[in-house]
Amino acid sequence: MFITFEGIDFCGKSTQVELLKNYLLNLSKKVLLIREPGGTEISEKIRDILLDKINYKMVIESEILLFSASRAQLVREKIRPFLDEGYYVISDRFHDSTTAYQGYGRGISLESVLHINHVAIENTIPDITFFIDIPVSVSANRKNLKHPAELDRIEISQDHFYEKVRNGYLQLAGQEKRFRVIDGTLNIGEIHNIIVNELILFEKKEFV
Amino acid sequence: MFITFEGIDFCGKSTQVELLKNYLLNLSKKVLLIREPGGTEISEKIRDILLDKINYKMVIESEILLFSASRAQLVREKIRPFLDEGYYVISDRFHDSTTAYQGYGRGISLESVLHINHVAIENTIPDITFFIDIPVSVSANRKNLKHPAELDRIEISQDHFYEKVRNGYLQLAGQEKRFRVIDGTLNIGEIHNIIVNELILFEKKEFV
Repeated sequence: MFITFEGIDFCGKSTQVELLKNYLLNLSKKVLLIREPGGTEISEKIRDILLDKINYKMVIESEILLFSASRAQLVREKIRPFLDEGYYVISDRFHDSTTAYQGYGRGISLESVLHINHVAIENTIPDITFFIDIPVSVSANRKNLKHPAELDRIEISQDHFYEKVRNGYLQLAGQEKRFRVIDGTLNIGEIHNIIVNELILFEKKEFV
Repeated sequence: MFITFEGIDFCGKSTQVELLKNYLLNLSKKVLLIREPGGTEISEKIRDILLDKINYKMVIESEILLFSASRAQLVREKIRPFLDEGYYVISDRFHDSTTAYQGYGRGISLESVLHINHVAIENTIPDITFFIDIPVSVSANRKNLKHPAELDRIEISQDHFYEKVRNGYLQLAGQEKRFRVIDGTLNIGEIHNIIVNELILFEKKEFV
């Protein structure tokens, strides 16, 4: 089963990914946790280029192709083999991030995004996608708690960019059945419970 | 004016690029010479990933996206601004390499190649493309003169791969008016003269 987590930066995805991993491990499931961009030797090298603020000149076309190159490697070197072995694969971001960030956010045409996503992942589409939704103001408040030096090249983006990204996610949520929109302003335990319940519901429907 | 050189590895492109650059400089033209992948700080970092043999696990989808990411940056950061300034921009490889190597050679669908090339270069299409054509056996003989450690991740490819790449170039040459096919088994001076004559012819047609 292939589970992805999506949302704007500082929405609390990574915490929930960890909680879900531990929940599944406690049930003696096999779990592979990955984060994007990255997850293979080649993908981590691409990650370094993508997130390093020294690369502030990066154009949006280069950005989308680099994210997708990293993902193409991850899909074939890790995700598919682990899914074939019966693992739960949980990914902190996947191709919906490209649609939301580089498509809706940066303005790459959605037709181009579709083609590039297809080359990167082909038929490796998540079974269920948890979109942890928070208002941009909440994201901005959480970002302000960090030292600027801790922020990467994408995280230093302005609020109006994040508004477009969030809108992109909401559009996707309206189109894709696999999306579950979760209120990211709830507390951590509440969000985790919602996720677990959604997962149980999904597996019941799928495997009964 | 935007001039590209194409051909399988060891066809003699780089020598001809240098000769043409010197020819134009002697005429007091402004010339920018670039080689792919590379040519900007970001593109050179991508080049390192692409050519390093340590990355032998690279999947073909990641390869095409990385080449195109490098090119997308080069087009916007260097090629367009220099063309706008009236430079002759000469590139050792460009998007036709992706069609020939990753499309015909590696087997990425030509439709996907077309879409990815479009994202990378949009309307920045070469005015004239010199395809230095040599039989694969000639390339293989020249390759054998090198120490294996000098060869990069692409150059260590086998002859049957280069047959497909060469066939790809010949297909392109049949489709694209901007292609000039040049017999790469001629001597260096002869090839240079053909290139200069073709360039003069092109500029006469274009600017009279």
